[in-house]
This record gives sequence, structure tokens and C-alpha cells, in this order.
Amino acid sequence: MLVSVVLQLQPDRPLRNPAGLGRAAHACFLGLVSRFDPALAQSLHRSEITPFALSILADPMSTRRGRLKNPPNSVWLRLTSLDERLSALLQKLEPKRIDTLRLLHAKCKVVSIISDSKTYTWARKSTFSEISNNGLVRARKGESYTGFRFLSLTSFSMAKSRLSMPLPWPRLVFQSLVRRWNAFSRITWRIDWPEFDRGVSIAEHRLQTCRLDLGRFSELGFVGECWYVIDRDVSIGLRHAIHALAEFAFFSGVGKKTTMGMGFVLPLTSGPLEAVFHGQG
Amino acid sequence: MLVSVVLQLQPDRPLRNPAGLGRAAHACFLGLVSRFDPALAQSLHRSEITPFALSILADPMSTRRGRLKNPPNSVWLRLTSLDERLSALLQKLEPKRIDTLRLLHAKCKVVSIISDSKTYTWARKSTFSEISNNGLVRARKGESYTGFRFLSLTSFSMAKSRLSMPLPWPRLVFQSLVRRWNAFSRITWRIDWPEFDRGVSIAEHRLQTCRLDLGRFSELGFVGECWYVIDRDVSIGLRHAIHALAEFAFFSGVGKKTTMGMGFVLPLTSGPLEAVFHGQG
Repeated sequence: MLVSVVLQLQPDRPLRNPAGLGRAAHACFLGLVSRFDPALAQSLHRSEITPFALSILADPMSTRRGRLKNPPNSVWLRLTSLDERLSALLQKLEPKRIDTLRLLHAKCKVVSIISDSKTYTWARKSTFSEISNNGLVRARKGESYTGFRFLSLTSFSMAKSRLSMPLPWPRLVFQSLVRRWNAFSRITWRIDWPEFDRGVSIAEHRLQTCRLDLGRFSELGFVGECWYVIDRDVSIGLRHAIHALAEFAFFSGVGKKTTMGMGFVLPLTSGPLEAVFHGQG
Repeated sequence: MLVSVVLQLQPDRPLRNPAGLGRAAHACFLGLVSRFDPALAQSLHRSEITPFALSILADPMSTRRGRLKNPPNSVWLRLTSLDERLSALLQKLEPKRIDTLRLLHAKCKVVSIISDSKTYTWARKSTFSEISNNGLVRARKGESYTGFRFLSLTSFSMAKSRLSMPLPWPRLVFQSLVRRWNAFSRITWRIDWPEFDRGVSIAEHRLQTCRLDLGRFSELGFVGECWYVIDRDVSIGLRHAIHALAEFAFFSGVGKKTTMGMGFVLPLTSGPLEAVFHGQG
């Protein structure tokens, strides 16, 4: 079971720079899990490929049914799980069972927990099978585009390099997704990467790097929107994987430090809109 | 000799969408060369790696000494050459020897030809040796950043693929530059590409795709600004190449269709300015 829930928190003092609270939110999340299942918290702490992602939203953004109430200083903590045991735990969370959480120096009251996608865009549950089936439907329809809105700072670790890459290069994005999918699902993807390189490119983007202050250190990444195009010769198998992995990104996030608020993405399925170039000067 | 000259043209009728005149400007340029050196025009037409680039500027932009006069409907045709014979020809051009040029249906009077970098940012002459030496100086100083402003639509062809890639992926940018440099210079670069992949990444960017209407067809590409960072472990040899190639881009352009106005870039050497991320809102 893949689960995404959103906790509305009311801190007892204003939180400055909520986007920079990734490390604190990570500690807060492990503490929360530990209250209900200490062994699971231990294994999450040790896991090489982590079965969760989190992000902090200073504003709940639009919902399917209008805007959520957003009292001053509210913070929204979005938690996703790719793992059965953690998903079961997240689904059972209730505000009164948690009461308060600590984020840095602030004591935060858990006002509500949203787990219903009808209430809020960022809450949802699904399964690997359901997402795989959705991908197959899109592949069979011949859909050639898939996109992401990168809502928090995103960046990728590179093989054998100390440097990170703040650019949504197709292979970096989809390798990151495959790695997480294959670590937690019984359905596994075997991607023909040379076919991927020949057959997948970028159709449209609008991107920008930013630096995020995380207290003791800072992180560089990009935000924006990027659409990928699949060439008409690409096999149905690869198309299937691409569409499924794109949808999976809703739960897994992409790139590095998704457990500290980075790589939070919204998969996009309606077609890209193109800007027209009228000259440089 | 590397040369960049700018022709100020006064068309006899307004030119709509000057940025889309790439094909016409390409034909116009070959026609111009053919008037003075028909054999050279033939060889340019046939060359696999072309020793020239051109771009059309609807506005001359700022100059080192204020703004150039820009009467209504003026068009600025920038021509660069990487080849001795063509560079010699460009340097000898005079408005009265050319008189008029045809751009699509418009007869354009050549008002002036700017070849002096003191007058105009886009005019300049240099040599491969000078640029190589400049690169070595920057490498020895330990400069770790180099950037480009992509002023016209830029995109890259990909190996064994029908698709283009509208993203300034470091290897695509520098492979494009090496290919052109090595085709025309006695100094040649031998790049250790695995070292390059480990040691060069992106420090900052602000990028956006656009589509350019070229009449019978359209082209997709990106514009914006991108800064590259060189890791501290990178060899002096590779640093030297990177800095020299970045400066060379002023003359060569980068990526595909630089002979039709695409891939027109300004190399940047002063450090990047970073945007700060305050959350996704």
C-alpha cells in the first residue's frame, strides 16, 4: 500500500523559514513512528533506500474542493510511505493519539490529519498494482507526454562524483524512481537504458535553481516544471514503465534528500503549454 | 583567426518575426560569400562541421559605449567565422562593396558593419591561441565557475536519436564546443569524458523552453542562463579546456543550427548570483 497523509500542525511559536525545516521534520517523523512502532523506526533509520518521503508546506495550496482553512502559523507536514507496515501505521494516525509533535524548538499541536484525496490534492492511497495498471492504460493509449511540477528543491546525486546535479535530466529522474520502486514492490521494472536514452527527451520546461538554508548547511536544487516526450518508436514495455514511474513519483518524490523535504513533485498528465520565442532583444 | 562582425541592415519593408529569419539569413550569408569567393561559398555549403555561425538581433542591445543607434525596422545580422579564409573575407567587408542584401522578400541596405569590440559587445576578433592562453590563465587561477547566457533558442542533437534535447547538460554543451574547436584549430583538445562527468556539474540556472516559428517548420529550444562548476579535484588540463571552450562559444555558438540563428550565447565569467528558496507557498 502506498499512502500519503497530511498533518496540519499548529506550532506554539512562529516557525521561520518552514521550507528549511527538513532535518527537524525528519527527526520529528522518526520520533512519531517510534512512539507507535520502535522497531520500525529503527529500521527506517538504518535503511539505505528509505520507504518514505516528507515535505513541509507553509500553505496547504488549493484542494479539489476549494482551499483548506489555513490559520496563521499553520504548517502542513506531508508524509508518504512506500512500505506496508509504515503505510498501515500512517493510516491509523489520529490527532488525539499524537496530540503534539516537536519541530525544532516549537511544540506543534496536531490539529487534523488528512488522508482522503477527495479533501486534499496531497492526500491519497494507492498500490503498486494500481499505478502499474494506470501506466499500462496510458501506454496503450499511446500517450507521449508526462511531466512533473517540482515543488520543493530537487537535485540528484551523480555516480562517482561529489557534485550534485540540479537539472531534471531524464535518466537521472527515472533512475531515481526505478531504484525506489524496485526496492519496495513485487512488480519490478527492467529498463533498457540505451533505449531510454534514445527514446526519451524533454519537450518543455521552465526551471530555476535556488539555495535552501538548512541551518548548519545549505542545499542547492531546482524548482519548476518539466515535460518529457516519448518517441513514437519506444516499446510498449518502456512506455508502460515511464507512465507508471511518473505517477509513483507522487509518493516517492525524486532525487536526493526526499526524507528531508527535497524532491517533492506533482506528476502532471495534461499536455504541456508551449511558450513562443520572439527574439532575444 | 576567429572573427565576429555585425551588419546593420535597413530593410525596405518591415520584417515580421526577425528571430524566425534563420533560414533566410543562412541563404543571404552564403549569397554574400559567393559574391566575393564562390569556391568558399561552395565549400561552406558542403561542410559537415560548419566554420561559421550567425544570429539575427532585432535590437542591438547594450554596447560597451552606450547603445547603438537603432532606427525603426533595423535588423542586426551577426556573423562569426572559425576559418582563416572566411575570417579574412568578413574583415574586408564594407557597406559600399555590399550595398544591399536580400532577406526573404525584403531588400536590405547595409548601413554599417561593426567589427570593433570597443564599439559593440558582439564584435570581436581573436585566435585559437589567444583563447587557449586565456583558458590556461583562468585554470591556473583556480577559477571554478563558467557560465553562458543563451540568447537565442538552443538545443542539442542526441546520438542515435531522432529527438533533440533542449537542456544545457554539461556534456552536450562541451562536446558540441570541442567538436567545432578541434575541426578548425591546430591546438586540439583530448577530453577525458569520464573525468568530465565526475568533475563538472551545474551550479545555477534559470532556463525555459520556447518554440520558434521558422515558417515551414518550427524549432524547440531553450533560453536562459546556466553556470557550470568544476570540482576541485579536476586536472589542470581539463580546467584549461573548459575555460578555453567556454570563451570559444562566443564565436562558435553551441548545439544545433547555429548557422540558422540558434545556439547564440554570451560566455559569462563573473560569478553566479544565487536565488534563495523560501518554500513552495
